[in-house]
Amino acid sequence: MNLHIITTGGTIDKIYFDAKSDYQVGDPVIGELLESMGAQFPYTVESAMRKDSLELTDEDRAQIYDLAERCSAQQVLITHGTDGMVRTGLELKSITGKTIVLTGALQPAAFKGSDAIFNIGCAIGALQAASPGVYIAMNGQLFEIDKVRKNVEANRFEAV
Amino acid sequence: MNLHIITTGGTIDKIYFDAKSDYQVGDPVIGELLESMGAQFPYTVESAMRKDSLELTDEDRAQIYDLAERCSAQQVLITHGTDGMVRTGLELKSITGKTIVLTGALQPAAFKGSDAIFNIGCAIGALQAASPGVYIAMNGQLFEIDKVRKNVEANRFEAV
Amino acid sequence: MNLHIITTGGTIDKIYFDAKSDYQVGDPVIGELLESMGAQFPYTVESAMRKDSLELTDEDRAQIYDLAERCSAQQVLITHGTDGMVRTGLELKSITGKTIVLTGALQPAAFKGSDAIFNIGCAIGALQAASPGVYIAMNGQLFEIDKVRKNVEANRFEAV
Amino acid sequence: MNLHIITTGGTIDKIYFDAKSDYQVGDPVIGELLESMGAQFPYTVESAMRKDSLELTDEDRAQIYDLAERCSAQQVLITHGTDGMVRTGLELKSITGKTIVLTGALQPAAFKGSDAIFNIGCAIGALQAASPGVYIAMNGQLFEIDKVRKNVEANRFEAV
Repeated sequence: MNLHIITTGGTIDKIYFDAKSDYQVGDPVIGELLESMGAQFPYTVESAMRKDSLELTDEDRAQIYDLAERCSAQQVLITHGTDGMVRTGLELKSITGKTIVLTGALQPAAFKGSDAIFNIGCAIGALQAASPGVYIAMNGQLFEIDKVRKNVEANRFEAV
Repeated sequence: MNLHIITTGGTIDKIYFDAKSDYQVGDPVIGELLESMGAQFPYTVESAMRKDSLELTDEDRAQIYDLAERCSAQQVLITHGTDGMVRTGLELKSITGKTIVLTGALQPAAFKGSDAIFNIGCAIGALQAASPGVYIAMNGQLFEIDKVRKNVEANRFEAV
Repeated sequence: MNLHIITTGGTIDKIYFDAKSDYQVGDPVIGELLESMGAQFPYTVESAMRKDSLELTDEDRAQIYDLAERCSAQQVLITHGTDGMVRTGLELKSITGKTIVLTGALQPAAFKGSDAIFNIGCAIGALQAASPGVYIAMNGQLFEIDKVRKNVEANRFEAV
Repeated sequence: MNLHIITTGGTIDKIYFDAKSDYQVGDPVIGELLESMGAQFPYTVESAMRKDSLELTDEDRAQIYDLAERCSAQQVLITHGTDGMVRTGLELKSITGKTIVLTGALQPAAFKGSDAIFNIGCAIGALQAASPGVYIAMNGQLFEIDKVRKNVEANRFEAV
């Protein structure tokens, strides 16, 4: 595996600032998580932006597209807010010859019991086995990008 | 995905008994872990045995073979102690038409910072994308069963 | 010990709502925390309000006073947001014959590595040994209520 | 508070060695725990031994006595295995002018949901408020040393 990781923000990276009684998107957590999990493969991490995915602009998505297309890696993992994840993924469909998996978390990685580590694991496992294309790994499932939606009320991803 | 999970024991399921100042292999943790991670796919769990993998006998491995071969699922996840994981996997190679992934943990799932959730995530992600065959998912890597060994000194799995 | 616990909200009880990409003060966590820690003494829990302490009104503080004064317990533990904790404590000084300890957390109890459990432990330990009066238990220290301030910049409590 | 901490081993410090499929008493965890909890008071830590308390000898207890008596601190916290905790505490009764609290954990501090942080918090809170004497802080309760026993079957401390 020759993996490049692009971080964009989202719930997975949210931390809590007592000073402001507020949370904010913090530093990308994925590098530290992979390290602590004993991951033994080489990877690079690039922080594209730190945003809630509802705040992503067309320019942001164009930037993510460029970073994913131009990187030398065949496998690309994108950590992303969940609300705009499908939309970003759909815009990456025209990238050929790469396996791209988007993932994130419904609870910040800093929380006890967060789904962040599990989702990243699913994405990493899928990246090593899936054909080129764009996928979302959430709720333990690997979805092709044009066959998935976020069910906002139920707060989970499901096949369409 | 039509997933069947076979649990065999190993470090992943170890808990600590203060009464005996000892750890023992406890109830399989994987069902509870998948539930808590918000996994949304159907699966069945079957506890084959509760053993350190160094204690597995030929009869135990024959039983694991039977359970994996006879179950109706096309995807089979086996949680297993790490020391005997490669050996068990090699004995499953003659099972055809199924994707079988073995995983486990280097630190009990009950520990803070355990790799259990991450490894299970990798296995679940790989199971949905990999061709039929037998694999090990450890250290964030997906290994074909005849191309992997456990490096006992370094306490990790690596390609051979 | 005959302990009554009054919860008022604050960071300790904050949870994260992905649906709103927001945190809010959730259900009081202290009962569940004490249960999970194996606490073996009897206690009662009463939720007075669920507020950031910066939003507490004079009426809220009057209510806390009444609850603390009128309860039959000699030991009273109050979980509270940190910013207004000293002010609330000062208003309780005229309650006689009771040991009252206020505590809270700088990171929500739901976070990995939160100081919530430790702070509650300090408060519980102090309640069983301290003379009647009003105290704050934060940062591992037991402060008499008129000898403490929150250092907002450093995000900690210190003696004055 | 002028606190000296003496560590003796016990469940609280147990870690898991996959290489040996075994747990062992590891480095004392209390310093790191206090640091991570934001404790702001000065303290010193001294590792007397790393043993299960069932293995403590008369010489070990004599050493603990000497360390507790000779240290300059007025407050002494001793982390200790739970099975022999009462016995060690009773031998410290003749030390005068100091507040000595023994604590430990029923689950290793490395475990999710361990009672270690809570118990240490209780001990720290009690040390700042209790009269000179020897106490045990376990299960959220502060016991005078000659009024407590470990109920081994129920795996908890209780008053006698």
